[in-house]
Amino acid sequence: MQQTLLPPVMHTARASPSRALPARWLADLSDLLAFPSVSAQPWHRGDIDAAAHWLAGHLHRIGLRNVAVLPGPNGGAPSVYGDWLLAPGQPTLLLYGHYDVQPAAPADGWRTPPFRATVVGQNLYARGASDDKGQLFIHLKAVESLLAHAGRLPVNVKVWLEGEEEIGSPNLAALLDREGERLRADAVLVSDTEMAAPGRPAIVVGLRGNLSCALDVRAPGAELHSGRYGGAAPDPLRVLCELIAGLHDRQGRVAVAGFYDRVRTFSADERRRMQAAGAADARFLSDLRVPADWGEAGYSPAERIAFRPALTVNGVSGGYTGPGGKAVIASRALARLGIRLVPDQEPAEIARLLGRHIAAATPPTVRARLRFTAQASPVVSPRGHPLMTAAVRAVRRVWGVPPVFTRSGGTIPAVAQFQRRLGAPALLLGFGLRDDAIHAPNEKLSLPNFCRGVATVRRLLVECAR
Amino acid sequence: MQQTLLPPVMHTARASPSRALPARWLADLSDLLAFPSVSAQPWHRGDIDAAAHWLAGHLHRIGLRNVAVLPGPNGGAPSVYGDWLLAPGQPTLLLYGHYDVQPAAPADGWRTPPFRATVVGQNLYARGASDDKGQLFIHLKAVESLLAHAGRLPVNVKVWLEGEEEIGSPNLAALLDREGERLRADAVLVSDTEMAAPGRPAIVVGLRGNLSCALDVRAPGAELHSGRYGGAAPDPLRVLCELIAGLHDRQGRVAVAGFYDRVRTFSADERRRMQAAGAADARFLSDLRVPADWGEAGYSPAERIAFRPALTVNGVSGGYTGPGGKAVIASRALARLGIRLVPDQEPAEIARLLGRHIAAATPPTVRARLRFTAQASPVVSPRGHPLMTAAVRAVRRVWGVPPVFTRSGGTIPAVAQFQRRLGAPALLLGFGLRDDAIHAPNEKLSLPNFCRGVATVRRLLVECAR
Repeated sequence: MQQTLLPPVMHTARASPSRALPARWLADLSDLLAFPSVSAQPWHRGDIDAAAHWLAGHLHRIGLRNVAVLPGPNGGAPSVYGDWLLAPGQPTLLLYGHYDVQPAAPADGWRTPPFRATVVGQNLYARGASDDKGQLFIHLKAVESLLAHAGRLPVNVKVWLEGEEEIGSPNLAALLDREGERLRADAVLVSDTEMAAPGRPAIVVGLRGNLSCALDVRAPGAELHSGRYGGAAPDPLRVLCELIAGLHDRQGRVAVAGFYDRVRTFSADERRRMQAAGAADARFLSDLRVPADWGEAGYSPAERIAFRPALTVNGVSGGYTGPGGKAVIASRALARLGIRLVPDQEPAEIARLLGRHIAAATPPTVRARLRFTAQASPVVSPRGHPLMTAAVRAVRRVWGVPPVFTRSGGTIPAVAQFQRRLGAPALLLGFGLRDDAIHAPNEKLSLPNFCRGVATVRRLLVECAR
Repeated sequence: MQQTLLPPVMHTARASPSRALPARWLADLSDLLAFPSVSAQPWHRGDIDAAAHWLAGHLHRIGLRNVAVLPGPNGGAPSVYGDWLLAPGQPTLLLYGHYDVQPAAPADGWRTPPFRATVVGQNLYARGASDDKGQLFIHLKAVESLLAHAGRLPVNVKVWLEGEEEIGSPNLAALLDREGERLRADAVLVSDTEMAAPGRPAIVVGLRGNLSCALDVRAPGAELHSGRYGGAAPDPLRVLCELIAGLHDRQGRVAVAGFYDRVRTFSADERRRMQAAGAADARFLSDLRVPADWGEAGYSPAERIAFRPALTVNGVSGGYTGPGGKAVIASRALARLGIRLVPDQEPAEIARLLGRHIAAATPPTVRARLRFTAQASPVVSPRGHPLMTAAVRAVRRVWGVPPVFTRSGGTIPAVAQFQRRLGAPALLLGFGLRDDAIHAPNEKLSLPNFCRGVATVRRLLVECAR
């Protein structure tokens, strides 16, 4: 199939305000997507810096003021700031997004180069197309078009674009210590979540927290020949597998003592509401092509993601898995684990419980080390604040339906920090789709959604004005 | 430290027949070690072929006849043949070795380049230095020096050098179908095992068998975001770890039904003899720096290796374990397992039992596939055949002590095949040391052992003559 940069859909779409996509916008977004700004991989630090400076130039160009690349604390990735504060008496809205992306390599199964944006039909394919370069661009294009058409914005706006979201925002607390005043706002708009279904925007009122860690098991000595020593020398890979297997019980619950002690239980009413709002469970399973139920006993798939914590094995490596095999007992085995937390679990306490569990379960023949790499608290957004009611009106106007209130299983560390540190509630109104393949190969953005997203944020800024 | 190719020890060693190491031999061995003839890695196939042809030239040069590079059946690696059959009425001895080696990369922790032989003190460091290029060279140098000094050999000799030992000799049966007549001999000499201790050669009278497999667990769909889906979508890495954890019980026994059904039990007397011959268990553990006992309950470390089967996890990979982490649920997880078998376990039967076990233990949400990549039967050498009694005399003469009879936990697939297919008993008399780090980084060969090995094999050929 021939792939072209300009989508055929553009030539046939009606030029309604919510459908028109200026070719210039697409070209600019493609430029931003071309930076392999992978925060997890140190060798991409130069690309991170380049992307930040490109964005600063872009904020200038669309008419923002006080544009600055803010150095990351502790040598972390920079963030990008710009504002427009010429609406006295109006509320101040912070538009948050992140320009860093997940790792991506053609070898993972990308059908198009991950850092060369490619339009196929109505979709734009690239790493970051949906998470979150494409969605932060929705904010920027809404601001740009309002400024271009009216010469002003209806409310005060600050834009802050982070560069470490995908590694759990490790330097965010330090940044807020330093830049709290600059970033202060009445509320925060975040577009880094997905819609309930195509054509049906969602306002996410709950996010899970996160605790990421690396679990490292080492043999006392060097790598050994598995024939000469197999059966009498410690096998770190086997121990690692046994430690991981011991993290769940037969009911699919996390088997760490105390893990569920602070997990909030929800009323039957709230559970019913959640059920009605989420994707039907049968469809959820068939979308994922899962042939049978998976997860904690006693909960539906939607509930497991929205209300219940989860422990996932993000990666395991050790020994030799290349072609032909190798008769070795590895000297070291490594796993990366990701734990999603729900109210009122706190990352620090769960880290303590997990550390105690691993220490007790590790045999005396090997050493296990647990290193925590990222943490974020779960979030519940207060309902009914003015930004949320404005969003309901904007969605109704642009999409013709009211938004669905939902909970996401994902984590946006900044949201909890803004709420706790700056007292600013967040509105999570995203325009991604469930099949956008974020964090996976062939990530995409729906271009029609992008256009209607811009229209929605424009309308939201108008609705926010007093 | 400055490393030189010619070891200082050479200039100070007494020129006794068992100590002299001609510089030419060292140069030739270094040439052979320079081929990265890694049978496991298809991209080294050219190096395999080059090493085979180099060896064929070398067999010519030392005076062997009928030299040929035998093509591997099914496109497998070639083997190298040469003979000297001018001793009518004398027995025919097949000298077996293998020129393929385990994978090696500087990144694994090599202090010297793995394919550039480097002498440090009395040791020669390189991949294959001990397993088995250095040891097959012991055979060749014994033949060469006898032919050079006497113009003839005391017995008939065939040399056969294999190129697929390290991947389990997958094409050996087919080769013996085709070349059985050419390789027919009264007995086989194999130097691919280790001594009981420095200065104390061992004759290995038992080898464990082997069954290698790849266990592949796949999710029904693509890689997923572990926040958005964690807790409700199948986690193939967790399933793989649970499957692996389920392969052993709490006593360290393999938990596959029927696994021990055919395992031979040994008399208290045989167990005592084994204990006396093997390394003391406390020293075994301290050599490996293992702080506590590991393995099947009820057996000593030496017994676990010599008499008992073992299942080792050779490698696991899946998801992302790179820097910074990645919030993914992998779509695929892979393990390589190695099972060492003891008499009278048979690889085909164990493969069936393991397949049934994995099928029953796999949840319906994922697919698990078990692929067997190598297999070899365990071996017990008949004691007291003429080659063995000749070897006892040769060892006594060169080393001043009788050999220790021992069992190895390792596997040499050709030994079982020669015994079953050609009716030729094998003598396993090796000159490696326990700390040679075979299959591991910084593999080495003791040069004094090499010299005394050559003297031992020379003497053995003389002792074999009727």
